[in-house]
Amino acid sequence: MPSPAKSRKAVCLLSGGLDSSTCLALAQREFDCYALSFDYGQRHRIELEAAARVAKALGAKEHRTAKVDLRVFGGSALTADELAVPKHRSAQEMGEGIPITYVPARNTIFLSYALAWAEVLESSDIFIGVNAIDYSGYPDCRPKFISAFEHMANLATKAGVEGRTLIKVHTPLIELSKAGIVKLAADLQLDFALTHSCYDPLPGGKLCGQCDSCLLRQKGFEEAGILDPLVSMQ
Amino acid sequence: MPSPAKSRKAVCLLSGGLDSSTCLALAQREFDCYALSFDYGQRHRIELEAAARVAKALGAKEHRTAKVDLRVFGGSALTADELAVPKHRSAQEMGEGIPITYVPARNTIFLSYALAWAEVLESSDIFIGVNAIDYSGYPDCRPKFISAFEHMANLATKAGVEGRTLIKVHTPLIELSKAGIVKLAADLQLDFALTHSCYDPLPGGKLCGQCDSCLLRQKGFEEAGILDPLVSMQ
Repeated sequence: MPSPAKSRKAVCLLSGGLDSSTCLALAQREFDCYALSFDYGQRHRIELEAAARVAKALGAKEHRTAKVDLRVFGGSALTADELAVPKHRSAQEMGEGIPITYVPARNTIFLSYALAWAEVLESSDIFIGVNAIDYSGYPDCRPKFISAFEHMANLATKAGVEGRTLIKVHTPLIELSKAGIVKLAADLQLDFALTHSCYDPLPGGKLCGQCDSCLLRQKGFEEAGILDPLVSMQ
Repeated sequence: MPSPAKSRKAVCLLSGGLDSSTCLALAQREFDCYALSFDYGQRHRIELEAAARVAKALGAKEHRTAKVDLRVFGGSALTADELAVPKHRSAQEMGEGIPITYVPARNTIFLSYALAWAEVLESSDIFIGVNAIDYSGYPDCRPKFISAFEHMANLATKAGVEGRTLIKVHTPLIELSKAGIVKLAADLQLDFALTHSCYDPLPGGKLCGQCDSCLLRQKGFEEAGILDPLVSMQ
């Protein structure tokens, strides 16, 4: 469903998961969205197919996938073959410390790319679906990180130097619980079946149902009282 | 010339140009250096060979090259085939505005990668050879950009969250003129012939002698009263 032309452009980070897809659906209401995904050697590359489906279904103006080399450093279970994705962790375990699925400086790198594209597009708006409630312990999902990035971005760019515009990093999901995100997505009529949220999918792309991302998604749908079509399709 | 083991690790951004090579030579005096270069689709990919030569000659612990996709957005004469590198600009012209060779958000992206590697290495020191004097109008070479990046970095990482260490972005060349950098490099016994500083090299890798980077290098050597072996080799 292509949207009618709007006047303002925004760059929207899109992994193809529930959160970023909801964020894009929200951004599309006000902006012409340029969706940006990353092929970073993640185990769950299948999410890139989800990102392409979601961008198309929501009528993004463009969707690009940047190939970025995060395997060059290792250090995360999402990118290093020798580290396993943890399974069956309780909510309490997820709340303690920073998990091995944390990819060093990932959001900093992703937002930096978004900033580059925004600069080329002469856009001053970036959307990212980070979440500080169910964020599973990632430091780069916290509001104070986002503010600091925004401040830095305004010193990094032509537009900032020339005083033309100020970059705004929008984080509409940052204070929502996963259940709140599920409800918001349902209000926005997001087709949940297009999204994908598993860190360690089984052959054929089925959800593992056991990683932090699957467990958080399950809990969110349960608490929202909505059925997840991804689960019922399996 | 491998150095004896030092106790502290630093990540050093290394393009293979004069500035970053001088910066690495300086960092090597106190740190075990992990040199990081980028293959970003630049016209002057020959600088990557220079980076490898310099890292080896200076005894860096490791040298890695991350392949990053900056062509995905275009917008710079250094990465877009349809934009030409400007030639024969006067010092006054270089001082006015932001040139077309500016790559959107490049230092933000490069520093983000350095941050990722620093996090994996458990290092808290990053070196970048930016320069705010002869910096040719790039917004992301200014001291206030660097401070803002450092602040953001400390909120982005595990170490920052856990209060273990604070990231320091070292910019030892930031206040030096190009002549000052040439003199410093000579004091550090950097072999100038290993470096490469041209945005638009001729076939065979010869310097064009006409781009901003060549002109700044020439001026620096002239003012320092030192002969540039790269020029006399041509």
